[in-house]
Amino acid sequence: MARKTKSENITWHGGSVSAADGSRRRGKAGCVVWLTGLSGSGKSTVARALEARLVGNGHLAYVLDGDNIRHGLNEDLGFSAEDRDENIRRIGQVAALFADAGVIVLTAFISPYRAGRARARAAIGAERFIEVFVDAPIELCTERDPKGLYRKAQAGEIADFTGVDAPYEPPVTPELVLRTADIAVDDCVEAVVACLEERKLLSPPVAGAK
Amino acid sequence: MARKTKSENITWHGGSVSAADGSRRRGKAGCVVWLTGLSGSGKSTVARALEARLVGNGHLAYVLDGDNIRHGLNEDLGFSAEDRDENIRRIGQVAALFADAGVIVLTAFISPYRAGRARARAAIGAERFIEVFVDAPIELCTERDPKGLYRKAQAGEIADFTGVDAPYEPPVTPELVLRTADIAVDDCVEAVVACLEERKLLSPPVAGAK
Repeated sequence: MARKTKSENITWHGGSVSAADGSRRRGKAGCVVWLTGLSGSGKSTVARALEARLVGNGHLAYVLDGDNIRHGLNEDLGFSAEDRDENIRRIGQVAALFADAGVIVLTAFISPYRAGRARARAAIGAERFIEVFVDAPIELCTERDPKGLYRKAQAGEIADFTGVDAPYEPPVTPELVLRTADIAVDDCVEAVVACLEERKLLSPPVAGAK
Repeated sequence: MARKTKSENITWHGGSVSAADGSRRRGKAGCVVWLTGLSGSGKSTVARALEARLVGNGHLAYVLDGDNIRHGLNEDLGFSAEDRDENIRRIGQVAALFADAGVIVLTAFISPYRAGRARARAAIGAERFIEVFVDAPIELCTERDPKGLYRKAQAGEIADFTGVDAPYEPPVTPELVLRTADIAVDDCVEAVVACLEERKLLSPPVAGAK
């Protein structure tokens, strides 16, 4: 490898590749499966099962959810309307980066507002954004209450809890609806995979990948 | 696939996998090559060349730099000391997510403060964090001035510009130093790859990957 003197070293000036070039050069793009729904509707359960299925089939998939976002990137945010907006804004931007890197991103956040989800769709690109409404009656979600949050909200220990004293705006035209009161997790996974295949968002699995 | 009635549908309660489990299940982890240095020192050039080399060899690599961060995730941040801290904090957290997903992340930010870089190292995990000091004399950086920023800073059009009227704290014990006044881009790439190999941070390329 030739060493260059300072004056010959023009590589440093001309060698830079823009982000857009980088994305084109990689020649592949991931996508985002954006799961939205009430707490307890099954978003994280579907996301984790879907991740296992996709990774098992040799795809590159990754879940973003409260576990890895609220304690890290968004640890500075609370649950005010402004902070919830910023929470979803950042998640949309991070999902866009992952998709640009070629990853199938699965996001599992209540994301209660249409405007916030529309902004995520715009950041990621509509053709790579699959909005999945994880739809379960609030009575069932309250019954499941996996984190005990409905109990706390009803006892007044948590304010502005979606479905109790804060609104949830259901998607008007989601790409997919999963009614988790009626179908099992595996069926949900099948439905999402079929949706991704139909839209040609599943690149062929990489041989030998685990 | 068996459909389950509501009462039988215990999968929804017990099926959740924690983030830590997910990471273990994937059984692989990426790493972060954290390039730090003055504007014009060559961070982005090295990062893009390294990305091309790693992707060409079948690894999964992705560059985070001003192009894809400042106009997206961190578009709400300016250049005050507080905002610069928050900029680097978020980048460290996003890099940690990418590494957890199995990606080799290449970050190219001035990241002038030792404390900020130490926090990124802690967020990512020291064993997966390679701090690379891209070291070039400020005279050379000013001469290269690829974005015309030194000229603006010296003309007083930009305040708090690192190296002009804001400090740069060089790493004390970086994993690698690249003196870009003396060696070519290709040699820098070789040096980083050798460092990753030595630390066993390059998993074998995936057959057939592009």
